[in-house]
Amino acid sequence: MSLLITGSVALDSVKTPIEEHHDLLGGSASYASMAASLFSPVNMVAIVGSDFPKKYLDLYREHGINLEGLQVAEGQTFRWSGEYEWDLNKRRTLSVCLNVFETFQPGLPEAYKNTPYVFLANISPQLQMHVLTQIAQPKFVVADTMDLWIGTQRDALVELLRRIDCLVLNEGEAREFTKQTNLIKAGRLILKQGPEYVIIKKGEHGCLLFGEDLFFSAPAYPLEDIHDPTGAGDCFAGAFAGYLAQKDRVDEHSLRNAVVYGSVVASYCVEDFSLKRLESLTQSEIRERYSLFQVMSRFEVG
Amino acid sequence: MSLLITGSVALDSVKTPIEEHHDLLGGSASYASMAASLFSPVNMVAIVGSDFPKKYLDLYREHGINLEGLQVAEGQTFRWSGEYEWDLNKRRTLSVCLNVFETFQPGLPEAYKNTPYVFLANISPQLQMHVLTQIAQPKFVVADTMDLWIGTQRDALVELLRRIDCLVLNEGEAREFTKQTNLIKAGRLILKQGPEYVIIKKGEHGCLLFGEDLFFSAPAYPLEDIHDPTGAGDCFAGAFAGYLAQKDRVDEHSLRNAVVYGSVVASYCVEDFSLKRLESLTQSEIRERYSLFQVMSRFEVG
Repeated sequence: MSLLITGSVALDSVKTPIEEHHDLLGGSASYASMAASLFSPVNMVAIVGSDFPKKYLDLYREHGINLEGLQVAEGQTFRWSGEYEWDLNKRRTLSVCLNVFETFQPGLPEAYKNTPYVFLANISPQLQMHVLTQIAQPKFVVADTMDLWIGTQRDALVELLRRIDCLVLNEGEAREFTKQTNLIKAGRLILKQGPEYVIIKKGEHGCLLFGEDLFFSAPAYPLEDIHDPTGAGDCFAGAFAGYLAQKDRVDEHSLRNAVVYGSVVASYCVEDFSLKRLESLTQSEIRERYSLFQVMSRFEVG
Repeated sequence: MSLLITGSVALDSVKTPIEEHHDLLGGSASYASMAASLFSPVNMVAIVGSDFPKKYLDLYREHGINLEGLQVAEGQTFRWSGEYEWDLNKRRTLSVCLNVFETFQPGLPEAYKNTPYVFLANISPQLQMHVLTQIAQPKFVVADTMDLWIGTQRDALVELLRRIDCLVLNEGEAREFTKQTNLIKAGRLILKQGPEYVIIKKGEHGCLLFGEDLFFSAPAYPLEDIHDPTGAGDCFAGAFAGYLAQKDRVDEHSLRNAVVYGSVVASYCVEDFSLKRLESLTQSEIRERYSLFQVMSRFEVG
């Protein structure tokens, strides 16, 4: 089944204590779509400026991403720049220029309106809702968010929660949104606001999947050399939604596996800057690391 | 097989934002021994003052803890008091009075000297070494430590690492000891210092077990109501060592299970103050939560 993904497409500048790169392909929709395309066909909804490099459009196409819903507008593409400390969990945003993104109010192509699976990657909840309401009868809707929207568009986010099936957010965001330091309480509080499932991402500590009668704790892959953590969360959620679209089945079993496949793809993403590692990622590499997730979390009495 | 445990026995005062209790049974050897006694016979090596309540000695005995190596000295028992914030991960030590502990240099009872399994619970590395050197031919030695010793007795700790089989420490201590923010690198660096296995405890995020060709990531039990986190780490390590002593087998399979049983017992410990929850903990409750650990970490493709 196909998966509609909306979010940002950006040109990123990323600095770590070791390296610095400019005009990288970035944005939540880029990371999520590339990750999801490893599992299912993707219908992308996003906007870029007339400066957007053709090589990136070619890259999307090579990965089977449908660009009918990618608007190319006069002006500059959304730009983001950020800097990581030695502790790569610590990031500082240096600049954000919305550019063409500022007035983005997409109308969906007709061919997109019946997409059964939907991932609303990180953009404002109003924009997420604007896209969602154009989809006829979505089977399963996943949404991501960020601290900025929790702080500035809380009402729109709460409204969105009533319309989606699964919210993905990180540890700090879950605590901020619920004012709860205990993550288990935080996850269960979010469930009460609407979505049937909640995933709390914990970076190096893995992630937690909550449902009414479901709790799954997934480990993180033991990475020693992280080159660029940017987009890991988007890749996680994109692969998670892509796997569900591929299986066309949402049950406890597929959800747990979707979380692990999301973790696998995210663990590859951070091994290089931007989407470089994902460009060449193979199905056999995905299977290999999935097996390692099995080995590292197995303990059953034999 | 029996397990020798040395460490502190203390009378604790613990304050949380909700409750406050005084003269609780505490100390690393108390928590570890009670936890281990759920799996194997325990030979305790510790010291208390003449003020130590008889009811606590009775409690140890009821749990099959051998007290031949528990010295009762003139004076006051070691006392500790601490306070937790709303975020129970944040603890402040209010006072520490070593009292009789200050001059503790135990000579082991003859009957203890052939104990095959050893857990050196959290006390100074010099004291841990002093006990260890009196044991004839230990089969497997586990040691715990804390930030204080990393800061003040680093050389003694490094010396100890060459003599033990498994070090247990928490996330912050692993980072401090190795000066590495990446926990995977930190774990592997500690392995190079001597022990065959290292366990990094991550509280609400579970724990990691490292060996030369072994990596196991265990989840934490999803606790919503933590009453008193004191001693959780000691219970974890005590139950871990106790399970290995019970099985009398140290291999990848028993180590993984020992980590899960350690996590199970620690998750019960924090449900009440001091050792109250462990006093009444049953084998069937342990089995029940072990099964929940299986359920919450399982994802294999069916």
